[in-house]
Amino acid sequence: MSGYFITFEGGEGAGKTSILQAVESNLKQLGYQVVATREPGGIEIAEKIREIILDTSHTTMDSRTEALLYAAARRQHLVEKVLPSIKQNKIVLCDRFIDSSLAYQGFARGIGMENVRTINEFAIEGYYPDLTLFFDVPPKTGLQRITDNQDREQNRLDLEKLHFHEQVYQAYHMLLKKYPQRIHEINANQQINLVEKAAIQNIIDFLQNK
Amino acid sequence: MSGYFITFEGGEGAGKTSILQAVESNLKQLGYQVVATREPGGIEIAEKIREIILDTSHTTMDSRTEALLYAAARRQHLVEKVLPSIKQNKIVLCDRFIDSSLAYQGFARGIGMENVRTINEFAIEGYYPDLTLFFDVPPKTGLQRITDNQDREQNRLDLEKLHFHEQVYQAYHMLLKKYPQRIHEINANQQINLVEKAAIQNIIDFLQNK
Ligand SMILES: Nc1ncnc2c1ncn2[C@@H]1O[C@H](COP(=O)(O)OP(=O)(O)OP(=O)(O)O)[C@@H](O)[C@H]1O
Ligand SMILES: Nc1ncnc2c1ncn2[C@@H]1O[C@H](COP(=O)(O)OP(=O)(O)OP(=O)(O)O)[C@@H](O)[C@H]1O
Ligand SMILES: [Mg+2]
Ligand SMILES: [Mg+2]
Repeated sequence: MSGYFITFEGGEGAGKTSILQAVESNLKQLGYQVVATREPGGIEIAEKIREIILDTSHTTMDSRTEALLYAAARRQHLVEKVLPSIKQNKIVLCDRFIDSSLAYQGFARGIGMENVRTINEFAIEGYYPDLTLFFDVPPKTGLQRITDNQDREQNRLDLEKLHFHEQVYQAYHMLLKKYPQRIHEINANQQINLVEKAAIQNIIDFLQNK
Repeated sequence: MSGYFITFEGGEGAGKTSILQAVESNLKQLGYQVVATREPGGIEIAEKIREIILDTSHTTMDSRTEALLYAAARRQHLVEKVLPSIKQNKIVLCDRFIDSSLAYQGFARGIGMENVRTINEFAIEGYYPDLTLFFDVPPKTGLQRITDNQDREQNRLDLEKLHFHEQVYQAYHMLLKKYPQRIHEINANQQINLVEKAAIQNIIDFLQNK
């Protein structure tokens, strides 16, 4: 047995957080040692970095400053939590990781995926996930899942938002093409119990082929 | 008249801060509009980032996290203070900038100069200084200037410290070789008024050839 690093990716409302919890308890029942986490993951330094990012009074925050801060928080969470758990032969399930930065900040925010990749590769120092599940659902469907007002007519802001999330979605598909070995697509546009099943099966297949 | 970005570099006790003040008042007397600054330069976001870096309770701070935080603070200070001043046709004198990160964290701390350059180039987005003065003084001399106990016998820690500063010194000379156009060497191993004169002359020559 050895440790593995598995990340969950996809747009808003794709089901990452829900499915991750289901996968966690399922793998535990099968006897695996599992750590479920997400950045900043309770790591003090990473939490403090996150506070700066999320402080709404920081209206002058530059998008590259923000990208560097995300990379810094990622680095610290990786070093303090993910890597020690992997060394203890645990399976680390992480809700979002490098691909989120590539898709959101790199592509949708327009800094450039390669630019954002560069600083993130400095941060992760080769520790790409062993496996990444991409939960594939049309952005509109994902957003509808997390808003209550599905029947309200769309305004300009909603459309802008939708456009942004479509950019994110497009970026994830570019990443799927770039990393066909690492990133596995899960159809998240079906009943949640079927998505769960597909995710668990995918991970079990991965673990058994190791 | 157009704005310029001039940075002051060198090891501890080389005279950067003292000379920068002298240069500032001298240029102002000559009628130039001058802004003297240093990171984080009173920029709130950069100050907050700096607090995380300097918080001594953060004993688990990873060196790459730290490097990313320095780059983030640099970015914000550049965007909020340096670039707006240059746009107002001012001469910005900045106490340390990218070369300090390359020398201290990249080379002396061992992350690698190219690695640290990569994240800093993301941060500065092409805004390398127009001119950099490197104040060249043997590390031992520089350190002696900032310690009172020059006669005390050196202990192991002092030697380690000296070794570190010799690495920094070596790195600055590598940078001099790499950027012969941008970085000008100033002999800082002479009377401070002569160092001042040399620095001012160098900057005046630079401004008059523009
Ligand atoms: N396949 C599904 N069918 C219907 N509802 C779903 C499905 N998957 C998730 N949901 C619901 O959608 C909502 C969002 O799910 P969840 O929070 O897991 O998504 P997420 O990918 O983590 O989103 P975010 O990116 O915002 O964190 C929840 O209410 C969840 O129960
Ligand atoms: N050429 C010189 N000869 C003698 N003393 C000097 C000379 N230059 C600077 N000093 C003195 O050395 C001390 C350190 O100078 P200063 O603070 O300007 O250096 P610095 O390069 O800014 O150092 P640091 O990297 O620590 O900020 C001061 O007391 C200053 O007066
Ligand atoms: Mg979630
Ligand atoms: Mg100084």
